[in-house]
Amino acid sequence: MGNSFGTLFRISTWGESHGGGIGVVLDGCPPGLPISVEEIQVELDRRRPGQSKITTQRKESDAVTIVSGVFEGRTLGTPIAMQIPNSDHRSEAYSEMKERFRPSHADYTYQSKFGRRDYTGGGRSSARETAGRVAAGAIAKKVLKLGCTVDICSYVERVHDITMPEMVEFPSFDLVEANPVRCPNPATAALMEERILKVRKEGDSVGGIILTRVRNLPPGLGTPVFDRLEADLAKAMLSLPATKGFEVGSGFDGSLLRGSEHNDLFENRDGKICTITNRSGGVQGGISNGEELYFRTAFKPTATILQEQQTVDQEGKETVLVGRGRHDPCVVPRAVPIIESMTALVLVDHFMRHKGQCDSFNFNNLQV
Amino acid sequence: MGNSFGTLFRISTWGESHGGGIGVVLDGCPPGLPISVEEIQVELDRRRPGQSKITTQRKESDAVTIVSGVFEGRTLGTPIAMQIPNSDHRSEAYSEMKERFRPSHADYTYQSKFGRRDYTGGGRSSARETAGRVAAGAIAKKVLKLGCTVDICSYVERVHDITMPEMVEFPSFDLVEANPVRCPNPATAALMEERILKVRKEGDSVGGIILTRVRNLPPGLGTPVFDRLEADLAKAMLSLPATKGFEVGSGFDGSLLRGSEHNDLFENRDGKICTITNRSGGVQGGISNGEELYFRTAFKPTATILQEQQTVDQEGKETVLVGRGRHDPCVVPRAVPIIESMTALVLVDHFMRHKGQCDSFNFNNLQV
Amino acid sequence: MGNSFGTLFRISTWGESHGGGIGVVLDGCPPGLPISVEEIQVELDRRRPGQSKITTQRKESDAVTIVSGVFEGRTLGTPIAMQIPNSDHRSEAYSEMKERFRPSHADYTYQSKFGRRDYTGGGRSSARETAGRVAAGAIAKKVLKLGCTVDICSYVERVHDITMPEMVEFPSFDLVEANPVRCPNPATAALMEERILKVRKEGDSVGGIILTRVRNLPPGLGTPVFDRLEADLAKAMLSLPATKGFEVGSGFDGSLLRGSEHNDLFENRDGKICTITNRSGGVQGGISNGEELYFRTAFKPTATILQEQQTVDQEGKETVLVGRGRHDPCVVPRAVPIIESMTALVLVDHFMRHKGQCDSFNFNNLQV
Amino acid sequence: MGNSFGTLFRISTWGESHGGGIGVVLDGCPPGLPISVEEIQVELDRRRPGQSKITTQRKESDAVTIVSGVFEGRTLGTPIAMQIPNSDHRSEAYSEMKERFRPSHADYTYQSKFGRRDYTGGGRSSARETAGRVAAGAIAKKVLKLGCTVDICSYVERVHDITMPEMVEFPSFDLVEANPVRCPNPATAALMEERILKVRKEGDSVGGIILTRVRNLPPGLGTPVFDRLEADLAKAMLSLPATKGFEVGSGFDGSLLRGSEHNDLFENRDGKICTITNRSGGVQGGISNGEELYFRTAFKPTATILQEQQTVDQEGKETVLVGRGRHDPCVVPRAVPIIESMTALVLVDHFMRHKGQCDSFNFNNLQV
Repeated sequence: MGNSFGTLFRISTWGESHGGGIGVVLDGCPPGLPISVEEIQVELDRRRPGQSKITTQRKESDAVTIVSGVFEGRTLGTPIAMQIPNSDHRSEAYSEMKERFRPSHADYTYQSKFGRRDYTGGGRSSARETAGRVAAGAIAKKVLKLGCTVDICSYVERVHDITMPEMVEFPSFDLVEANPVRCPNPATAALMEERILKVRKEGDSVGGIILTRVRNLPPGLGTPVFDRLEADLAKAMLSLPATKGFEVGSGFDGSLLRGSEHNDLFENRDGKICTITNRSGGVQGGISNGEELYFRTAFKPTATILQEQQTVDQEGKETVLVGRGRHDPCVVPRAVPIIESMTALVLVDHFMRHKGQCDSFNFNNLQV
Repeated sequence: MGNSFGTLFRISTWGESHGGGIGVVLDGCPPGLPISVEEIQVELDRRRPGQSKITTQRKESDAVTIVSGVFEGRTLGTPIAMQIPNSDHRSEAYSEMKERFRPSHADYTYQSKFGRRDYTGGGRSSARETAGRVAAGAIAKKVLKLGCTVDICSYVERVHDITMPEMVEFPSFDLVEANPVRCPNPATAALMEERILKVRKEGDSVGGIILTRVRNLPPGLGTPVFDRLEADLAKAMLSLPATKGFEVGSGFDGSLLRGSEHNDLFENRDGKICTITNRSGGVQGGISNGEELYFRTAFKPTATILQEQQTVDQEGKETVLVGRGRHDPCVVPRAVPIIESMTALVLVDHFMRHKGQCDSFNFNNLQV
Repeated sequence: MGNSFGTLFRISTWGESHGGGIGVVLDGCPPGLPISVEEIQVELDRRRPGQSKITTQRKESDAVTIVSGVFEGRTLGTPIAMQIPNSDHRSEAYSEMKERFRPSHADYTYQSKFGRRDYTGGGRSSARETAGRVAAGAIAKKVLKLGCTVDICSYVERVHDITMPEMVEFPSFDLVEANPVRCPNPATAALMEERILKVRKEGDSVGGIILTRVRNLPPGLGTPVFDRLEADLAKAMLSLPATKGFEVGSGFDGSLLRGSEHNDLFENRDGKICTITNRSGGVQGGISNGEELYFRTAFKPTATILQEQQTVDQEGKETVLVGRGRHDPCVVPRAVPIIESMTALVLVDHFMRHKGQCDSFNFNNLQV
Repeated sequence: MGNSFGTLFRISTWGESHGGGIGVVLDGCPPGLPISVEEIQVELDRRRPGQSKITTQRKESDAVTIVSGVFEGRTLGTPIAMQIPNSDHRSEAYSEMKERFRPSHADYTYQSKFGRRDYTGGGRSSARETAGRVAAGAIAKKVLKLGCTVDICSYVERVHDITMPEMVEFPSFDLVEANPVRCPNPATAALMEERILKVRKEGDSVGGIILTRVRNLPPGLGTPVFDRLEADLAKAMLSLPATKGFEVGSGFDGSLLRGSEHNDLFENRDGKICTITNRSGGVQGGISNGEELYFRTAFKPTATILQEQQTVDQEGKETVLVGRGRHDPCVVPRAVPIIESMTALVLVDHFMRHKGQCDSFNFNNLQV
């Protein structure tokens, strides 16, 4: 329980960071969708460790295999099982973890909850688990690409205290991918990269904020009162390792405005009902309103740092732990494809729940 | 679909603001729990309109009835159905709403999704729906009270730009309830109340932030990887009307710190494993760690304002709408018991999911 | 938990037989469906006690109220709450039940599971609970009626050892309703009625078998591997009080045939792929194949009899109990609308799960 | 959707008969349970093809791998992923199936539902899918073995028209496994084996009935009104390929008795509340009553026969098909471990749902 997500387009992930591998089963994917291992690998490569000098140097090819549910290049409508072996174990680097709880990791809480844990690595709490989400997310993205005109773009808006200026235009995929930080403002990206390299050198880490924008979303997605679109997105984002906050539209700062300043007035733009402003962030009453959907996700600094820290051992005795091994000094750049994947999974699920109630999604196109 | 919440302690709410009433069915409540209508009414009265001069003057007694699941003062283990009639309709005040979409309300999105809506009021999107949640939350609170030593306290930390100073001690229920704003700092509360009355006079509205704190939570609650404790709380909070953000622990500001500043180091405090700081906010890896759980929820300013606003009608023709009727100039004070209720529902659900894996909750005590 | 049924068209029932009433919340009904209290009452009247001389004489008008989800005669797409008050309590008739367990009732098992029970009647285990199912089933039937050409017909095929001859033609609703037994063979019905009256006079009871037939079902309904159409039907039927068996198509007797006798060979009938025989009963591999769907449900004799029976009391002391009060000497005739309701609920749920994958159901027609 | 089963102890199966393999993810298994690949393999070997002369001669070692969720020989409390590669493809034997629908198989219905299918074999509809269920069932059996004293025994009661005499004693595992038919009456088993070999020689097939008995089940399992113990069992059994019927206790024949003959009177047997007879089959009102739980599952004759049969091709043109390849002339003997597995899965799920409400299951013992 707790390892599945989604109602009609549903993923179940499995795997520990240093066990036999990582995987996902996707149940509910419509039949006839053309999908290849290569398309999925592209997304996994964006998440993969060792992809640039600002990420962990752990060597994992993260080569995915589709074991079921796809036949002659198309989905069968049956569960799609995908898996990624763990190749670069190096568990010895983690030997101290067996006895000592790493601060701000999940070692202590997993031990408390389950009475045991796979101490050769982060186990199930490792961000490695998200590889399965990205593999399923790649299929969700393909569904969106063929079925409608929705565009999802996540990018790094802030690293530590370096924030990019507001960007009105919707950035292209290439612009985001043009630098290892995945910030579409090249000047800010350079500063961010510099900062990340600096903290790495100091054995430290930083966090940041990712902005996600979705355009061309039709009105009508979301299922109040509990499965509001933003509620499901909030859960999706807070289910990711290292996230500490979620806000949609005006978010926390929106509470600084008055109603007369915050309300999004309606207008008729070329025959279409639109809002003049978009402080709602594309959702009203839990349902998309046809404006751009945007939300922010906050990440804490990576818990693993290469400095000596006070901690306790399994018996509660105080001791110290010096972080070793390879880690990401800032997880935010690699989190971009993960957040896009979770967003795509939520959107496809809601398109399927909304099926037959609007014409904004053409399920026939999936089989073309 | 979309109107149920929880896995083992599960609520299903129903009702429109101007229909026959509002209600909830709670399935999964353990048998033998002593519960009275009065205990539930206490919580509903905290949410009730017209409770003070800073809330809407809509007259609703919100008198709850228990229709099933309770026998001789104790729960039977069967579904508990509760309902609250709608008494103060005054639908005429809403007559304009039939044709014109209220800005930043859900009129347009409900119309888009469902092709129709109950235009005599907010219908299902009205915050009136949360009365059902509060009724069920009162039972969840009773379960917590008898089964363990957990304390939940929500309070208003900010209204508009008025923020209370940080409060280290855990405020008492009476302190929070001592003023109509539900801010435990009396001086700040006075300023907040003044601000709310001022914007009401101006026909405007403001938002704010609620801080929720939970103490005495044992380690082990939460079910990774998707049903992390903070993920379920995030969903619960973002499923409430007018919420725009959620953050746990250090939240958005946590991303401004370095790992070496942010990590919560462990210590042994009188034989108990604790963290020296608590930037994690009581959860690590999606599981409670025994420290105080705290999170913030951001509310936008109330969408209903008594000013003329540009909008469109059902045919898309531009027009204006002047807000009428009674409304809350600031929903945050009345949202306090709602947030506490959702928190209690999430916690009881996770206690039940964790049952048998720890001794922190004594289910036998429920029947005492 | 355990009081909800369905995935996308989902009911949650509540209520004890002698509490405040009985009810149901239906979540997931498409918006725009025209529905009236009268249409629902028609079905409830078919289930109602006291409808003929062969049923219990308990007086219940079973008058249903729609409390939410319907506005101006059409569904809103929000939860539909319906309730039926309990009027004819007469709990005194049940006073002995407080101390003594009625044989083959659920008194002992509810007491064992929950540690308490509503001893003024059958409580939650009473067949009265099914009134909520029938109310929701009436809406499901309306969905089917408007959206497709499916016909459901259940009828009594056997009472005690009196079996009607095989009926090839699909009986009309009027034919089934022409007699109180709901057996479409008038001669057999007369014998059945006579038998029921005889056992009533003897203070005894009998069981029987209901055959359910569904025609015009398109191929494609059902979701293997677990949510096979027949698996969901089996669960639906076995969730009804007093049922002991379910079989689809050739059923138990099918195991007496060889494969060469049992297989349904395909033919092309006027351009349509059909099977020559239909031992499969309309499902193959868990999915409807376009042939008539048919299945049987077995009911045990009513547990309440007006004879002295050996039993034990709450302390385990052996004693006797003499059944009193009004009961159904045979539940099968009144179970016919209940089984039809459950069938309709399962079918609509599967039509919704299959939405967009076939054109056999026109969701647009629901709003006409 | 449709490929998961269970609420708290939940399996998700995946895989086609001729794709990359077959597998299962088990979510919700308590941590600390000792489990080995060997224990799981034992159950898979009971289901494996080619185990005796009366089963299909398809060569599959069905060697299972545990990929996650088990560490140092014990479960972690995280999802347990298991997989079994497909080794003996021989898809050429199925080449005709690409164009022609096999009678009473799922070729036509899968094609209708999904618009495509893996025509190199039965694909997802193949009974090979049940290997994943048996692997998970082996873990469920281990949970039962350590946590309580429940015994599950399924055996073949009938093959074609050969029925074993009633057996009062609870047969040992060894007695059931003593012959390839899995009928604990050696004389009847010999006749059954003879019959199976005879129909195989004739290129034909037969069906049969499996009786499942569970002893030492405490009262209190089952969650009315929908998740009754027998309702969940009925769904589990009807979700298996080739099943056509389910009955619990007196079943279909129970409807031939009068209430005065059918009711199970209570007695006090050595201080324990028991029933004198057991026509209820161990469940009353959907909840176990502490008596032996027993139910029967009916299987149709195997659809694959080595005879020429009339059918149609994908375009609807009438043609003939001659069954080829290796098949089971009677699936019933191999279905025994599958049914036991599904039974174990249902029981563990209900033990977990009932956790904390009774002491009949000692979850602490799982970790011993």
